[in-house]
Amino acid sequence: MTFKVIIFGCGAATPTLQHHPSAQVVNLHDKLFLVDCGEGTQLQFRKYGFGFQKISAIFISHLHGDHYLGLVGLMSSMHLLGRKQKLKIFGPPALEQLIRINLELSSTYLDYEVEFTPTSDTEKILVHEDQTLRVFSVPLKHRVFCTGFLFEEKQRPLKVKRDFIEEYQLMPSQILLLKKGEDVVLEDGRIVTCDEVCVTPPPPRKYAYCSDTTYLPELAQMIEGVDLLYHESTFLESEALRATQTFHSTAKQAATIAVMAKVKHLLLGHFSSRYRDDQLFLEEASPIFEKVSLANEGLEIDIPN
Amino acid sequence: MTFKVIIFGCGAATPTLQHHPSAQVVNLHDKLFLVDCGEGTQLQFRKYGFGFQKISAIFISHLHGDHYLGLVGLMSSMHLLGRKQKLKIFGPPALEQLIRINLELSSTYLDYEVEFTPTSDTEKILVHEDQTLRVFSVPLKHRVFCTGFLFEEKQRPLKVKRDFIEEYQLMPSQILLLKKGEDVVLEDGRIVTCDEVCVTPPPPRKYAYCSDTTYLPELAQMIEGVDLLYHESTFLESEALRATQTFHSTAKQAATIAVMAKVKHLLLGHFSSRYRDDQLFLEEASPIFEKVSLANEGLEIDIPN
Repeated sequence: MTFKVIIFGCGAATPTLQHHPSAQVVNLHDKLFLVDCGEGTQLQFRKYGFGFQKISAIFISHLHGDHYLGLVGLMSSMHLLGRKQKLKIFGPPALEQLIRINLELSSTYLDYEVEFTPTSDTEKILVHEDQTLRVFSVPLKHRVFCTGFLFEEKQRPLKVKRDFIEEYQLMPSQILLLKKGEDVVLEDGRIVTCDEVCVTPPPPRKYAYCSDTTYLPELAQMIEGVDLLYHESTFLESEALRATQTFHSTAKQAATIAVMAKVKHLLLGHFSSRYRDDQLFLEEASPIFEKVSLANEGLEIDIPN
Repeated sequence: MTFKVIIFGCGAATPTLQHHPSAQVVNLHDKLFLVDCGEGTQLQFRKYGFGFQKISAIFISHLHGDHYLGLVGLMSSMHLLGRKQKLKIFGPPALEQLIRINLELSSTYLDYEVEFTPTSDTEKILVHEDQTLRVFSVPLKHRVFCTGFLFEEKQRPLKVKRDFIEEYQLMPSQILLLKKGEDVVLEDGRIVTCDEVCVTPPPPRKYAYCSDTTYLPELAQMIEGVDLLYHESTFLESEALRATQTFHSTAKQAATIAVMAKVKHLLLGHFSSRYRDDQLFLEEASPIFEKVSLANEGLEIDIPN
């Protein structure tokens, strides 16, 4: 089952030709979620061949322009191109007003329903749940209200191997019992155990998006054990003071969080435009945390089973 | 003296990889003005090598996303990159509130002054004047409050030829009189006439930006005789009904306005994403108005003396 992240933008606030502002698509079991929506995100959808009408929910971390200024344009284009399906939006409480006022003042009336759910910057809360996943907002520490997002795949049910279904001529009701972990007695008295005939699904996977934030040790326990962590690294350690002053992190700090949270894979992003060579971030983080990658526009990163 | 228009975006509302949303820079005597500011305009500045801090004023036609959604991001980047110089903004009255709320809710406090001047959609009004030009907003007819903009170069003063200054040993006070069109009597009694020693400057040039609008014959007299007219041609005649319904124009209608207004050069833009080949707009307009060009991203179009 698919679980991957596609990077549309991993630059910081000021515009460059090297990186786009923050936006990424999370594909979980072929359901698409958009995380942050910097200016130009709708064009990135076109560039990378993703239909934005397939997006069922959008998660906005905070209200700095490079994380949300593409949202109203995207919503407007969804409308112009005939969207009828409800769109769920999760973000800071003020985002709801911001969307409403932008749409009102530009006389844009959407043909589809928007369901807004506010996040919290004081505690980790469950904001979205469906059959296959849970999404939590996770408080971060930035100059303004800001949260990360934790995508948790739900435990998939046990699966009865096809060979055994035929061999034992299992009925649907018996298959259901076996998938619940129970044993089944056949008509001839034989006992079929769950252990014998079921495949145990792989453990559920987790992805955490944490941008923007100052170095925040208490974040580690909230995202502990995730398979993939996207953590901002706006600066290098040479600019550590500036990172603290602007409530951002360095590559070293991001790697330290990855160690503390025992994550499997660290993906660095939100690179300041002052650096011409992204490899510097990799060089700074690698000695602290081994499995680290650099975000880049167009990168698709799988979260394997 | 420079007078040219640089196209940053000439597409219509929905995003394509072919065209960017509306934005263009007017360069008059090396002063830069931005006209409309669709999403991604700040990146277009980078792409085409223009510093956006040099922009002294921004003119917004109307509050449809493809004409203004890049504005707050651009203003925010101007701040982040250290702007102190005042920024003048001209646009629909609601734009002022829209900017204020966007900045407030995203906790963005600008380090430079913003001076907002509302346009009018009922009459042609002078909105900006300096030593070298006047800018008028011109009412258009669209689904929402919308204006075009007319940039009028001021008549440059007469210039006394250098050779004559030396020949007649003219004093600064005498030069001033000659530049005002008066004659001067030298100490030896000779009369120096303005006609003899002055160069007449070329007539002042005019540029009109008209997007978005339905076919509007009364527009012609408001922009009569402009050297260059940028007129929207969202559709072709085959979609004339749709053009009327959505308050847009066809290429043929744009050309008809150019004829009625006796303009020198017509520049078509705001092309709907439904057409793959922009040449179709040229083919439709050319039989009606001879000197017609197609806008395209990166195009610099001179308005010659």
